[in-house]
Amino acid sequence: MFQLNENYLKLPGSYLFSTIGKKVNAYAAAHPEKKIIRLGIGDVTQPLAPAIIEAMHKAVDEMGKAETFHGYAPDLGYEFLRNAIAENDYKSRGCEVAADEIFISDGAKCDSGNIQEIFSRDNKIAVCDPVYPVYVDSNVMAGRTGTYDKETETWSDVIYMPCVAENGFAPELPKQTPDLIYLCFPNNPTGATITKAQLQEWVDYANKVGAVIIYDAAYEAYIAEADVPHSIYECEGARTCAIELRSFSKNAGFTGVRLGFTVVPKDLKCGDVALHSLWARRHGTKYNGAPYIVQRAGEAVYSEAGKAQLKEQVAYYMKNAHYILNGLRDAGFTVSGGVNAPYIWLKAPNGMTSWEFFDYLLEKVNVVGTPGAGFGPSGETYFRLTAFGSYENTVEAVDRIRHI
Amino acid sequence: MFQLNENYLKLPGSYLFSTIGKKVNAYAAAHPEKKIIRLGIGDVTQPLAPAIIEAMHKAVDEMGKAETFHGYAPDLGYEFLRNAIAENDYKSRGCEVAADEIFISDGAKCDSGNIQEIFSRDNKIAVCDPVYPVYVDSNVMAGRTGTYDKETETWSDVIYMPCVAENGFAPELPKQTPDLIYLCFPNNPTGATITKAQLQEWVDYANKVGAVIIYDAAYEAYIAEADVPHSIYECEGARTCAIELRSFSKNAGFTGVRLGFTVVPKDLKCGDVALHSLWARRHGTKYNGAPYIVQRAGEAVYSEAGKAQLKEQVAYYMKNAHYILNGLRDAGFTVSGGVNAPYIWLKAPNGMTSWEFFDYLLEKVNVVGTPGAGFGPSGETYFRLTAFGSYENTVEAVDRIRHI
Repeated sequence: MFQLNENYLKLPGSYLFSTIGKKVNAYAAAHPEKKIIRLGIGDVTQPLAPAIIEAMHKAVDEMGKAETFHGYAPDLGYEFLRNAIAENDYKSRGCEVAADEIFISDGAKCDSGNIQEIFSRDNKIAVCDPVYPVYVDSNVMAGRTGTYDKETETWSDVIYMPCVAENGFAPELPKQTPDLIYLCFPNNPTGATITKAQLQEWVDYANKVGAVIIYDAAYEAYIAEADVPHSIYECEGARTCAIELRSFSKNAGFTGVRLGFTVVPKDLKCGDVALHSLWARRHGTKYNGAPYIVQRAGEAVYSEAGKAQLKEQVAYYMKNAHYILNGLRDAGFTVSGGVNAPYIWLKAPNGMTSWEFFDYLLEKVNVVGTPGAGFGPSGETYFRLTAFGSYENTVEAVDRIRHI
Repeated sequence: MFQLNENYLKLPGSYLFSTIGKKVNAYAAAHPEKKIIRLGIGDVTQPLAPAIIEAMHKAVDEMGKAETFHGYAPDLGYEFLRNAIAENDYKSRGCEVAADEIFISDGAKCDSGNIQEIFSRDNKIAVCDPVYPVYVDSNVMAGRTGTYDKETETWSDVIYMPCVAENGFAPELPKQTPDLIYLCFPNNPTGATITKAQLQEWVDYANKVGAVIIYDAAYEAYIAEADVPHSIYECEGARTCAIELRSFSKNAGFTGVRLGFTVVPKDLKCGDVALHSLWARRHGTKYNGAPYIVQRAGEAVYSEAGKAQLKEQVAYYMKNAHYILNGLRDAGFTVSGGVNAPYIWLKAPNGMTSWEFFDYLLEKVNVVGTPGAGFGPSGETYFRLTAFGSYENTVEAVDRIRHI
């Protein structure tokens, strides 16, 4: 008789955003007359930039003619895209990353969920707290996290690194030595960043203790301040300890287009074995490439027109971020993030828990945010608002919240 | 110090099609004047049908306007596509499959590699021999297959079900009881099929012993004979024992577009737990939906125009299949498949092994096929040719092979 992967059964409740979706849908069904403003899930709302639309139409036409039709993509992705990434995201910033160290995928969520597969099940992970739920949940599914304590909402075999107001929402080096360290900057959910000097400390630490940093830089396009690193490979020694995850979802609005990539430097080894070869094997065995049309769309992100148009798009969202940050701060709320990131991290008022505040906002002013508790125990009294709405909705939402 | 997933290191060599690709590229580089005809990898060559191109252009335009832009897709896929599948692939054939039992994905390769994750690592798998390599390799990566014997090229904990000329390339019920049974009909690589009555025996067996059948029906569009089932849900009792994988790659030429789906009936349970909920959890945690544009392309496959155009496309490839089958049979080769499938299974002549025949064909007549040994030990003296080339190339390849 077949049996299930029992690790799946250990997962408490459903995935955070599914739960939020159900709550919001139930409220909307019960109150069809209410205008709900969604600043919860980090989904973009601006249309794709014209340069991207143009590239996609062209690629669609190519797929309609035998002489320009494209079947299976190369395992690692098309060279035109990998070259554009190597040139624009790395070489131009002085980072040493070769095109064949870049693996094109259908998004950073998949990569961040799948990357743990190439490591031993006995490896111990360290995560920021609060944290993007996929890092922990994918490790739960793999049986790497021990047992769940309902009281503390933590896993026995996970090292949690609290990111709270006291430490500026920046994790401190853990007391217990981890094997895999998940870092995400600009951070989801807090919107916090660390400086290049701070990130260098992590790289030095990882090299010293023999840990791998899984660096999620999905929000790098939102960085405004000069001393905040765009890539972990800006740090010396990162090529022997760091994997970097990138996404086109937030810098180019590809949440419904699906494109991302992972960098695995060939210098990153366990004994004689390069992690690059393991990840290549996973790609070759369990993945079949991002669509040709989507990879051409990705290429357009790096065209001169694409760059200019996307700079405007990011500025649009950051105008929202500043409006939320300043508007709520002026109204007396405790807020952070929103400077180098499209997320604002808000302290729930009046001693409310984050889910209490979620329900309160949904019901009183019909604004949807994300409860901090969904990201980990240190998020218990916090709340995430995203800058990805329209400007008009953002202004209205902030005005509604100011007057609660 | 971090450690690797040692199961990855057990994998012998690289993924079959990567190896073939390297060999062919090396030959092409050394002999740039030769015209190589590729009937190896199962990649399509005909352009996307006009109805699909039209739907994609329309969807691209929608993505360029704020009011019709689409961000993250629903976890399970868009309802318009799930409804079209439920109606056309199932209801119209008398199969009971609801739209919310259909999970849209970026292809059957990913699904067939990922599906094992929701089962216990202690479960024992049974596979046809020869077999699509992903079934076995993904289980090796999960640590489910025991040790590898280089002599026999088999894994100690895998139940192999030989599919050879003597049994009409149809597996027999295994002596040892499996937990998971991978079946693929029309078969890749042999092109063989089984009748509905034969498949019913497998369903009855799985229900009796408490096994799950993972049924890969990626090639169902090529079925020509009446008693060959298009879906396992045509069999009574399949809803309590079978998961079905489907692809748009071969019926609609989507190898470079990427779309597939998996059916997990809600009646398929282990104790009280529905596998549907586990697969939904995996989708929600580690996947982020197929692109909107691609799902609209999938919808167009089921439009009246799309159906008519794709019927012609399948007929085009099947004309190739018949040409290969008849041409090589007339020339004295032992061949099978090619009637309900785009694959022809050819016995290597003169006692050659399949890799010897691969090298021989590549070097003597510049035709690329796939060595049967890459699919398992029972493929050792066989060779797969695909019907996915152009008609002109197919004719030329067959003529070249006839005269070796």
